[in-house]
Amino acid sequence: MTMQTKPRILILGAGYAGMICAKKLSKKLPPEQAEIILVNKHSYHQFLAQIHEPAAGRNDFEDVRVEIAEVLDLNRVRFHKGIVSSIDRERQQVHLSDGTVLSYDYLIIALGSEPEYFGIPGLADHALTLHSLNGARLIHTHIANALARYKAEPEQKHLLTFVIGGAGFTGVELATELADWLPELARRYDIPVEKTKIINIEAAPCVLPGNDAFLCEQAAQIMAAKGIELITQDPIHHVESELVCLKSGRQIHTGTIIWTGGVRGNRVVEASGFPVQRGRTPVDAFNRAQGWENIFVIGDCSLPFGPEGKPLPPTAQVALQQAEHVGENLVNLLTGQPLTPFRFIHRGVVASLGRRYAVGKVKKYRATGLIGHILKEAVAIRYLYKLGGLPLVIKKGLLA
Amino acid sequence: MTMQTKPRILILGAGYAGMICAKKLSKKLPPEQAEIILVNKHSYHQFLAQIHEPAAGRNDFEDVRVEIAEVLDLNRVRFHKGIVSSIDRERQQVHLSDGTVLSYDYLIIALGSEPEYFGIPGLADHALTLHSLNGARLIHTHIANALARYKAEPEQKHLLTFVIGGAGFTGVELATELADWLPELARRYDIPVEKTKIINIEAAPCVLPGNDAFLCEQAAQIMAAKGIELITQDPIHHVESELVCLKSGRQIHTGTIIWTGGVRGNRVVEASGFPVQRGRTPVDAFNRAQGWENIFVIGDCSLPFGPEGKPLPPTAQVALQQAEHVGENLVNLLTGQPLTPFRFIHRGVVASLGRRYAVGKVKKYRATGLIGHILKEAVAIRYLYKLGGLPLVIKKGLLA
Repeated sequence: MTMQTKPRILILGAGYAGMICAKKLSKKLPPEQAEIILVNKHSYHQFLAQIHEPAAGRNDFEDVRVEIAEVLDLNRVRFHKGIVSSIDRERQQVHLSDGTVLSYDYLIIALGSEPEYFGIPGLADHALTLHSLNGARLIHTHIANALARYKAEPEQKHLLTFVIGGAGFTGVELATELADWLPELARRYDIPVEKTKIINIEAAPCVLPGNDAFLCEQAAQIMAAKGIELITQDPIHHVESELVCLKSGRQIHTGTIIWTGGVRGNRVVEASGFPVQRGRTPVDAFNRAQGWENIFVIGDCSLPFGPEGKPLPPTAQVALQQAEHVGENLVNLLTGQPLTPFRFIHRGVVASLGRRYAVGKVKKYRATGLIGHILKEAVAIRYLYKLGGLPLVIKKGLLA
Repeated sequence: MTMQTKPRILILGAGYAGMICAKKLSKKLPPEQAEIILVNKHSYHQFLAQIHEPAAGRNDFEDVRVEIAEVLDLNRVRFHKGIVSSIDRERQQVHLSDGTVLSYDYLIIALGSEPEYFGIPGLADHALTLHSLNGARLIHTHIANALARYKAEPEQKHLLTFVIGGAGFTGVELATELADWLPELARRYDIPVEKTKIINIEAAPCVLPGNDAFLCEQAAQIMAAKGIELITQDPIHHVESELVCLKSGRQIHTGTIIWTGGVRGNRVVEASGFPVQRGRTPVDAFNRAQGWENIFVIGDCSLPFGPEGKPLPPTAQVALQQAEHVGENLVNLLTGQPLTPFRFIHRGVVASLGRRYAVGKVKKYRATGLIGHILKEAVAIRYLYKLGGLPLVIKKGLLA
């Protein structure tokens, strides 16, 4: 602890985890009890779980982000725009890329994830990723540009093939969304949509690997119905410029390679000396970094464990529950109450499969089609409501 | 002449010249007097003089084209979609790229122009051109993609530099239009517009070379006011990927090179054996190919001469007057009237300088600013009215 009159809580990252934690703390902790500082690369918070929608032409990019100042009381939470470059646990300091040094009493690391390329040669150099609003916008303009390039040079037929590597949630949601966008886009560029092709490549034997068989089958069916070619059990071997080579030897010429097949925790965590597994640092039952009582790690860069010691996946659902939990516990800590251990409640999953269809499983209930779609929207609405109340829900158009 | 019962008029190309000629003939020649066939690459007619507008974000691409079927009576004019590959003057036949052979009694060549690169190394490979609707759409998506790429890789600062080679009408109109679009586009991608840069390069000592000094000065002033860097008397020496090298030795790193610095007649004309100067074949006083009484050549692929024997420039204004003239003369010819020689009437010029400004000179009158802008719109309206009457003017939004 430093000699400050009141403790300083420093939150790194304004993704799902950081935002909800900041929101909780700002509501529950009176100003005299703690100072709260939030550091983020951008002045806005992005709805990462939804960016596949505008990436593939549904809605506007403004619908998937909100200015932090709009949803947090910046009189209560001090916002510092900056990029975290390292964490000095011994000195209780965080270094930003612009040279700023911020000290803390309590640190909440919510720095999220980045793409994991598994060392596949050429992949990082040639693939786009759906990992940020900026990445999503690039995918959007890149796809439109591919069609425009094809019209200018019709012999370049590979420009009409779109390859998505990885058929987890992100890959499947993007592929189906793209399948719904291409007819509209092809019409705009006077291209027969039959000439376009979406290929989704997955190393595992099925789509949405690791999920309920019902979800996997439903998703595969819908994808087939939308004309998406699904390649399973044939991992990407290497990637060259406009060429994807699979382990089987198959070669796919394409103007667009989007990699959704892997995530890892933000590299800052590992670089700062935390032990990691694929960039995620294991946390204890209180979402604390192992061995550090004043450092909490939540969201994709943390590695929490379920009741049977099984690692929890890096999903928004886990991140949000961790954020609430750490918020509560910090309040407990600062008010002399005992800490409560984290217990993840699996609320189910919903995957959108294009503009008007989704498939989900909530407890024992299965939802498909429009019902699934409504469920998916409900999840988004619930989140927006938590973040910014009804005004934000209305503003982002989800009730329109 | 073939042994057909009625002569066949074959019009190649549905640009400004071909469309207006077809329109005139279809109105003035009763069906029993001649068959009319129009061949064009696309099913639509594009307003080439305006495509810089949607290329740089003003209006929609649909505003600068119209389906040929919408403005020509296709019961009167038979439309054949195809690409002309060669003209056999001896056999009076035209070969299309799909193998179709069309015979004619009278041929009207209105195949337009294509970019001229003057042998500048690398230019054709690395530059985009504003020479068709498809080219304009590619410029549009390419520019948006450059900004999106920059956001994803902010060290690639050259992506924010946009180089336009050539400061004739097309170059100046595109540069100013782009200057009006960039603030909006930069905002959309969260980029400070001050970081973007437009450079217009001209080999001649001034912009709009060959035009009235008043126009040149006005244009240069407006361009400077819009923050466009104008480089004159420093031709492009060679071009590499994302690099423009000038004769002076100056090197410009850029993600976007657009070449507007030269046009030449469609290569089919030269390849078919017509004598050419920069792809344009000289025509006689009746806009006929030299030595061929049944072949008329109009628009950018023709080389007509003014009263003092000075070649006329390849502009829409010349093309439109030639089209009307040839239409009239063919009617004269088929009804036994004498032919009248072509006399070009210079009606003045107007250059748009962005969204709300234009500069023009009509006879001794000079127009700038909004007046110039209205004049420019008036020219466009006049053309639309000629082509498709009031409905087309309204549809394309020019009276809105």
